[in-house]
Amino acid sequence: MSVITGEALIGGIAVRGNGSDFKAWNPSLNAHIEPSFHTVDDDQIDQACRLAGAAFDTFRATTDEQRAAFLETVAAQILAIGDALIERAMAETGLPRVRLEGERGRTVNQLKLFADLLREGSYRDVRIDSALPERAPPRPDLRYRLIGVGPVAVFAASNFPLAFSVAGGDTASAFAAGCPVVLKAHPAHPGTSELVARAVAKAVELSGLPAGVFALLTGVGNAFGQAVVAHPEIQAVGFTGSRGGGLALMGVAAARAQPIPVYAEMSSINPLFLLPGALQARGFDIAQQFAGSLTLGVGQFCTNPGLVLGIAGADFDAFAHAAAAALGGVAAGPMLSAGIAGAYQKGVAGLAGQPGVKTLALAAQEEGKGGAALFVTSADAFLADKALHGEVFGPASLLVACRDVEEMRHVTGHLEGQLTATLQLEESDHAAAETLLPALERKVGRILANGFPTGVEVSTAMVHGGPFPATSDGRSTSVGTGAILRFLRPVCYQNLPQPLLPDALRDGNPLGIWRRRDGVLGKE
Amino acid sequence: MSVITGEALIGGIAVRGNGSDFKAWNPSLNAHIEPSFHTVDDDQIDQACRLAGAAFDTFRATTDEQRAAFLETVAAQILAIGDALIERAMAETGLPRVRLEGERGRTVNQLKLFADLLREGSYRDVRIDSALPERAPPRPDLRYRLIGVGPVAVFAASNFPLAFSVAGGDTASAFAAGCPVVLKAHPAHPGTSELVARAVAKAVELSGLPAGVFALLTGVGNAFGQAVVAHPEIQAVGFTGSRGGGLALMGVAAARAQPIPVYAEMSSINPLFLLPGALQARGFDIAQQFAGSLTLGVGQFCTNPGLVLGIAGADFDAFAHAAAAALGGVAAGPMLSAGIAGAYQKGVAGLAGQPGVKTLALAAQEEGKGGAALFVTSADAFLADKALHGEVFGPASLLVACRDVEEMRHVTGHLEGQLTATLQLEESDHAAAETLLPALERKVGRILANGFPTGVEVSTAMVHGGPFPATSDGRSTSVGTGAILRFLRPVCYQNLPQPLLPDALRDGNPLGIWRRRDGVLGKE
Repeated sequence: MSVITGEALIGGIAVRGNGSDFKAWNPSLNAHIEPSFHTVDDDQIDQACRLAGAAFDTFRATTDEQRAAFLETVAAQILAIGDALIERAMAETGLPRVRLEGERGRTVNQLKLFADLLREGSYRDVRIDSALPERAPPRPDLRYRLIGVGPVAVFAASNFPLAFSVAGGDTASAFAAGCPVVLKAHPAHPGTSELVARAVAKAVELSGLPAGVFALLTGVGNAFGQAVVAHPEIQAVGFTGSRGGGLALMGVAAARAQPIPVYAEMSSINPLFLLPGALQARGFDIAQQFAGSLTLGVGQFCTNPGLVLGIAGADFDAFAHAAAAALGGVAAGPMLSAGIAGAYQKGVAGLAGQPGVKTLALAAQEEGKGGAALFVTSADAFLADKALHGEVFGPASLLVACRDVEEMRHVTGHLEGQLTATLQLEESDHAAAETLLPALERKVGRILANGFPTGVEVSTAMVHGGPFPATSDGRSTSVGTGAILRFLRPVCYQNLPQPLLPDALRDGNPLGIWRRRDGVLGKE
Repeated sequence: MSVITGEALIGGIAVRGNGSDFKAWNPSLNAHIEPSFHTVDDDQIDQACRLAGAAFDTFRATTDEQRAAFLETVAAQILAIGDALIERAMAETGLPRVRLEGERGRTVNQLKLFADLLREGSYRDVRIDSALPERAPPRPDLRYRLIGVGPVAVFAASNFPLAFSVAGGDTASAFAAGCPVVLKAHPAHPGTSELVARAVAKAVELSGLPAGVFALLTGVGNAFGQAVVAHPEIQAVGFTGSRGGGLALMGVAAARAQPIPVYAEMSSINPLFLLPGALQARGFDIAQQFAGSLTLGVGQFCTNPGLVLGIAGADFDAFAHAAAAALGGVAAGPMLSAGIAGAYQKGVAGLAGQPGVKTLALAAQEEGKGGAALFVTSADAFLADKALHGEVFGPASLLVACRDVEEMRHVTGHLEGQLTATLQLEESDHAAAETLLPALERKVGRILANGFPTGVEVSTAMVHGGPFPATSDGRSTSVGTGAILRFLRPVCYQNLPQPLLPDALRDGNPLGIWRRRDGVLGKE
């Protein structure tokens, strides 16, 4: 049974928010859909955060195996919702079935990946420095491990109703770290959120964990999310969304009596570098693939290629022509919400109106839809106009014609921080790539060769992050096992008697995990 | 030859600051000492930061072995200054020779510890996920490593003129990470700073590195330090000092167009928990050791035990009596600066005047000196009065009489974040310790048993950090090899051709370092 009642979940109990009502929007039908949802009020936020704080010590005291099993139970409960989840998500987002089924698989696999990480055990970065009693002064026995930071506020994303939402990467990594989660649902897919939240709450119950480990808060407006971030029990924030939204939460977090870290994934235009050899050898093919990457999911990906740098000349012109032609064949698709579509159309009109910018392709824009748009400008014009550097969320991209590789490098140095950069290259381009790589490393979290940035693997080595404003904290990733590091902090135990030490730190390595003893990794 | 000219060092060249003049103060003689120093102006700050930004790519492209050798060269050049360094530091701080010689040893060993860390190589957290071309969709080849964040602004501390200053822990860890350092000297010991800075600059030159890798900026006033933090080339900040100073820098960093992380070690009162068994078995001994820890270095340590929690009763009274008696025998010592002594005396007078606080020991306060002070209050009074929770930098401590262990735990929950907490315990106290430990883990960076928090080992497993306001970022340590993580961020390389990959990520593991391949640690 998968009933959607429009309620929030606090302390494992479905409660009706005391604030203003709202309904989900079906972008394919252009209509609101039932039932009504309700915005939680300050008391309800306070209750959810307090319960999370109270649950923290019990939750983090679970063994890695217990938390791994919990994550797997969450995954199983999500699958148990069945097709009702896919149907509701389709209705609330306009995304096609195949995409949402894939996203559900990704969500489930993500939970399992963190379960594997917990069982392997080395995420705690255990370090032991042996006592040296004969040294002057004597060295004490020192033991170091990472523990959870405390309750985490997670803000669900509009564009991934499953993989970056209620039980998405932020929640999975916070749970893995032993941190309770207070989840702020995205108002674009509240029913999907409720279904998944009920699955999570069921998993909490089946695992014998305190109900405060998870809460779902529903609502519209910015104020209630900011109240969650301001709550003293919250110790970190995970967010995927707009630059304005992320900046606002950073401001709230910094203004607290106790400032807390915010991991906001905000804004990226993901530059694509067309190196000359590649452009000559396979410019037409790259143009087709580029058009596919740009319009995938109506361009609503953080890693959408919104900027293309090439070297001015016949090959670049041919690429531009081919890309524009390919985009002309893509029908405008429904965007996730009327707000996103409106912002996209405004952004496209803004780009089209900038001096020095020429429109290569521009689909007719219908209400609620996003039609592909392609523009071209010169490096000089691009460098002179910061309005060309911002993200237009949707299937729009800007080509920048550079004089040579050196100018490409120069433009790179003036870009804002990015999630990704992609090099299209042949072996003849390696020398050019070598001059670009140091500049790219300073600007981005992930550097690709001969691919497209859309499609973010969930694995051990992924970085979905990057210098500001790609993320608020470029030392982090929100995808892959590295994401757990956002919600951990080190504690050192000096001369603590063995019975008082956590298992991970005890003599004899009872957990059999990798540990660093006197600087040397091993499993002693 | 160790001449002190009163100049800053920018681009390896000694330059006279264009701003206001100042001289060092000799707290033992109560007199200014020669020569004059000069505050750098905005152009000089800009020059130093730009040179650091320009040097970054060259510096971080060095091999780990090259940077290890550079750190060892810095250490050798510091030792080569000889006794002139110790004499100048004694004159500028009033600290005794044995302490400063010890601190020099610690500084040199710290540099060598990071050299060892670089040679071991696993600090880069290398991860490789193999391509799975047969999978649907295919998994790309993904490779992950940590790289330096960029130029780091380091603010030297007043209380450790060597180990937390020009070539101290922040500088050593930033250099190890491949980050150039713009060093803001502390005006309390400018001559010591210049001597060490010339040694660092000499090591930069001897190592064939760009001169922009290191700059020494001199001056008085808060504005010029804030201008360094605001400079666009600076990518992270290391600071040890007051809460007000740290908060101001956090504000500047958060207000930048591109916000940057600040690692500020600011404020801690380092609670000491006297558990009943320990108090009964060795209360008198603990009182003597406590008095020694409290007055060591005139109490001018971040880890000074400024708060003592015990259970009201005869044993606690006996401890208080013994501690007061022991402190009565300690002469007031010269503090590091007139400003620090003045703030200490004001803080002590403030504690003495709080309602519910009884003075147990209070040495006569002479100008420029810090005499020990001991107070006692009840848990109720402590909880009711936030003025009792703040740090008084110097040899003052407050005893808090609790009803029982449960009240100790309750008080712990209301403390601010701390660098350390110490349990004095016997085996009969283990059950009590078990109830306290979860609360302590949430509040502190290091938990000690049967020792004293002063004395911070520089090693792999040390944590000198803790939740706000102990530090601005409780996910970090400023002492030990973990400190390097503050200045690193991950970059992922997707399908990059082998010749374009850094050595650490290439097939065949040419550096022979620990790497995580498909989630499994090894040295393949």
